[in-house]
Amino acid sequence: MKTLFRISASALAAVAVATLAFAGSHGGGLPASVKARKAHMALYGHNIGVLVTMAKGEADYDADAATAAAQNLAALSALNQMTYWEPGTDSDSVEGSRALPALWENIPDAIAKGQALNEAAVALAGTAGDGLEAVQAGVGAVGKACGACHEDYQLPKN
Amino acid sequence: MKTLFRISASALAAVAVATLAFAGSHGGGLPASVKARKAHMALYGHNIGVLVTMAKGEADYDADAATAAAQNLAALSALNQMTYWEPGTDSDSVEGSRALPALWENIPDAIAKGQALNEAAVALAGTAGDGLEAVQAGVGAVGKACGACHEDYQLPKN
Repeated sequence: MKTLFRISASALAAVAVATLAFAGSHGGGLPASVKARKAHMALYGHNIGVLVTMAKGEADYDADAATAAAQNLAALSALNQMTYWEPGTDSDSVEGSRALPALWENIPDAIAKGQALNEAAVALAGTAGDGLEAVQAGVGAVGKACGACHEDYQLPKN
Repeated sequence: MKTLFRISASALAAVAVATLAFAGSHGGGLPASVKARKAHMALYGHNIGVLVTMAKGEADYDADAATAAAQNLAALSALNQMTYWEPGTDSDSVEGSRALPALWENIPDAIAKGQALNEAAVALAGTAGDGLEAVQAGVGAVGKACGACHEDYQLPKN
């Protein structure tokens, strides 16, 4: 066990340093929960971007790339997000947060909206390989699911 | 189909606006691929942080939270990352990128290191509910897998 512990302690130290280095270079003083949800939204945006670009004809339709992006959205929307929505990190409390206080007053609805996004993404993952029209229809449904949560719980951009 | 198209077009427009708004407010002029991999690393760091904090005794052991964080790491490490490692976005080419050119010269090895991380995360997801010692051992293995890739392919911090 001594060897195992030595390995663990050394690896833990490496992780801790990496985590701190990251925290020090991104998002300034934002709480960890806010940085995490912004990163999560960035990965939604990245993968939706792949699909929207195809849907709008700005990139060639690619069945594998479309399916991969939709599968990523399905997996991301299934992540456990219980550490993200820390009380006291709403847009009234934290500069740089755009999550409205209403979100914390409507947790079951916010969870339902997250589940609706997951369902739309899973559906798209199943059809994205079938052609451009399937991507256009499916990414529209994903966009509606995103918008449903943003409309109620996200502070609009200035 | 007209109604479907109208819904799709409107939702697409909403997604496009949201994506552009996001792109305009995060990471400045970094390429989308670089922003995506930084966001991905941030979510690794967030979930590893939950586990390291417990492993070091800075937070009480919580079987559900530990398992959720490990499951998140397993899911994140299984995402399709083919859009992340765009040629021409290494640390010599893009200010703000820390991915060394060596990564693009060793893609099979980088993929293998990613798979090793996934295996360590899957293993931890299976044991994280068993107690603090299991978390300490498992997060050490995850940290080693992170470090293996960073040592070879990530520019050290100044």
